[in-house]
Amino acid sequence: MKGFFYPSKVAIFASMKEGKTGYEIVKNMVEGGFQGDIFPISPGANEDIFGLKVYPEHQGLIFDLAIVAIPAQYIPPLLEDFGAKGVKRIVIISAGFSEVGNIAAEEQIKDIAQKYQMRIIGPNCAGIMNTKCNLFTSIEVRALPGHTAFVTQSGALGGAVLMMAEELNFGFSKFVSFGNRCDVDEMDLLAYFETDPETKVIALYMEGLTKGREFLAQAGKTAQKKPIVAIKAGRSRAGMRATSSHTGSLAGEDKIYDAAFHQAGILRVEGVEEMFDLCRALNYYTEIAGNRIGVITNSGGPAVLTVDKLEELGLMVVEPSEVLKDDLKSILPPHVSLGNPFDLLAYGGAESFYEVGKRIASEYDALITIFVPTSFMDSTVIATALGKLKSETKIPIFANFMAGRLVKGAVRELENYGIPNYETGERCARVIQKIYQYSKRLKDE
Amino acid sequence: MKGFFYPSKVAIFASMKEGKTGYEIVKNMVEGGFQGDIFPISPGANEDIFGLKVYPEHQGLIFDLAIVAIPAQYIPPLLEDFGAKGVKRIVIISAGFSEVGNIAAEEQIKDIAQKYQMRIIGPNCAGIMNTKCNLFTSIEVRALPGHTAFVTQSGALGGAVLMMAEELNFGFSKFVSFGNRCDVDEMDLLAYFETDPETKVIALYMEGLTKGREFLAQAGKTAQKKPIVAIKAGRSRAGMRATSSHTGSLAGEDKIYDAAFHQAGILRVEGVEEMFDLCRALNYYTEIAGNRIGVITNSGGPAVLTVDKLEELGLMVVEPSEVLKDDLKSILPPHVSLGNPFDLLAYGGAESFYEVGKRIASEYDALITIFVPTSFMDSTVIATALGKLKSETKIPIFANFMAGRLVKGAVRELENYGIPNYETGERCARVIQKIYQYSKRLKDE
Repeated sequence: MKGFFYPSKVAIFASMKEGKTGYEIVKNMVEGGFQGDIFPISPGANEDIFGLKVYPEHQGLIFDLAIVAIPAQYIPPLLEDFGAKGVKRIVIISAGFSEVGNIAAEEQIKDIAQKYQMRIIGPNCAGIMNTKCNLFTSIEVRALPGHTAFVTQSGALGGAVLMMAEELNFGFSKFVSFGNRCDVDEMDLLAYFETDPETKVIALYMEGLTKGREFLAQAGKTAQKKPIVAIKAGRSRAGMRATSSHTGSLAGEDKIYDAAFHQAGILRVEGVEEMFDLCRALNYYTEIAGNRIGVITNSGGPAVLTVDKLEELGLMVVEPSEVLKDDLKSILPPHVSLGNPFDLLAYGGAESFYEVGKRIASEYDALITIFVPTSFMDSTVIATALGKLKSETKIPIFANFMAGRLVKGAVRELENYGIPNYETGERCARVIQKIYQYSKRLKDE
Repeated sequence: MKGFFYPSKVAIFASMKEGKTGYEIVKNMVEGGFQGDIFPISPGANEDIFGLKVYPEHQGLIFDLAIVAIPAQYIPPLLEDFGAKGVKRIVIISAGFSEVGNIAAEEQIKDIAQKYQMRIIGPNCAGIMNTKCNLFTSIEVRALPGHTAFVTQSGALGGAVLMMAEELNFGFSKFVSFGNRCDVDEMDLLAYFETDPETKVIALYMEGLTKGREFLAQAGKTAQKKPIVAIKAGRSRAGMRATSSHTGSLAGEDKIYDAAFHQAGILRVEGVEEMFDLCRALNYYTEIAGNRIGVITNSGGPAVLTVDKLEELGLMVVEPSEVLKDDLKSILPPHVSLGNPFDLLAYGGAESFYEVGKRIASEYDALITIFVPTSFMDSTVIATALGKLKSETKIPIFANFMAGRLVKGAVRELENYGIPNYETGERCARVIQKIYQYSKRLKDE
């Protein structure tokens, strides 16, 4: 698989007219800063694009990765050419295969791939990316660098995810849209990312599963090394109609997926927002040792919503011990709540957040810190105090600084300290529950 | 109640030192553009602030609304003064009353209010706002103008909501933080907003309910005129501990709240994000006639997640009739799905969205339109086509344009046409389900 992600010479077979697929891919490759050779190939083209010569054909060129976005019927002879010249890694973006009922065409390219022992990603996909070497063989928005590998069956959903990620300043190690997976499938990709040093977290969007047992076996193995966050779409009757996923070997009953995923140690999420929330946190923390969660806040309302969600998800918002209460009493003004949530009220400055956090850390497995500034308060100092707290206590800390422009600087500061911030405390709770679930499973094995 | 929101002369009793409560309120009033008189009052102060004279005492001044943020023990004599001079509307921001166990002090101000027939909002609150006349008697971020009245028991949550709203460009007609509600309570506010011409939707954040029966009776009446969206926090044991809401006359069992709210026609939401989602839509649509939802998309993945959520919520993703299918066949290229979701694939341009929408409108009660552009597509033309579709079909249309900077212009365009856009189709589904629930209840009565 590595050959797909670290090529030295990439040939792109597609229309190079402005706004067309090939043009946009070359643009992404050049603007993205790919260091190797790029060969745009388009019959009849005679203009240079982005300072690169466009070749009318590939004869005489040597390359180790081919990106193909030409009409489906021209692909088999091209693959034969590749076979003859020893090109082993091909990404087929073109549609017009099994997804429109053209099973024969897909079987044909599978056969050719087998004959020459070449590997194919696609067809009907949105390409692949590797931010480590600025490989952007896609018309989608370029991924920012990061440590999450994103693997998607739906190309358009992949594009939407990249765009949402850009807004969140969330980065990826690799991006793979596998489309109809005529050859390279989820199992290959999981196995590769399991040992990819750039990848800490694997995120997966899938609809149908054709090889359920193999997938679960591979995922179970991979999940022991790295967390897998998965969206399995097509839960409803309408969703199954749209994906035709009822032909898969795992029955379409969603509860079966739920149980099987849980069994394999896959962290299933509902949609892309929850996926981002969880992947962001997993980049910082993959372990939460127990289910006792402490909440420190300067604001009652958001803390109540947070503890409501924590208990709903089966986490424990336990009260502090009497010894700890006495300890807290000595440092806090009267009227401050000594229970959990620890509501510092208007006394909730940086010093109080730090002091309370430091004292309660021994009795909790993770902390949620909620801070709501008024329009003239500086929330960055609170972030700095939490950074200090994190480095001294080693306990996973999650933040919910509310909201908008008043906390932008503070949120950046939190990121510098490796503390993920969420729009609401309820989102912190959901993330904590999943990471705890993952840790518990690893421990049980 | 109107006197609170349309005063002509406002006196503010609080410290006027830079950064202190009084200073920040006066700043908000002046910068916000309040047209009436503003009297900052602070003993010992001798400097002008924001071009206004600061008075050492209120004797000799005439005003019809008093904002009070002085220490609790000085408030009773001040209220007696107000009583003597006929001031009837007082907002008490100061804390130090029942919320810290000082029940006697709160009873005392209640008694004074009763003696003089004055009305009090608070104590322990974050003030009130009316964007219609630029009244911003609060230290929180100023609300943008809009048609949602927001009523909150938690002041800090109110501040967070205002800040989140600013990010979303979401406006309010009125903002009321009612705090300990020693006098003015939810019932008074619901009754007022029920007939307030600036208010289309009422949003409520509450923890404890002390007068459950009265509340439900008033809410049931108000909900027949205007939708009420409510967060009821304190569902969990830890949440009840934090709010002491278990002393309320409605038992703390959350299921009882759920049933009672449903019975009264209140749309209960989990948290502030769902509250915004729903209020935004209710500003445009308060009725969805039935539960048949059509989904038009240019992108399979997001549409599958959307229909999964629709069915989960009990909505019907029904297939089009055979007649309609034939009709669609005549205008669409082959391979395009004629089922629901209607997946236009790469053919999903403005014309197709419009033509398909126009044709299917008669068989569905609401439409979700999903559009995922690639990096070089113009999504604004799709928004314009949907605006045209909306004006011609009268069917409620919801949008999920994904994502970020690629759709910013289109989302603004959608807003101009009164089409709410959400980050995901699942969020569209949740909103539709609640509005359908509201319409159904109104119809059943």
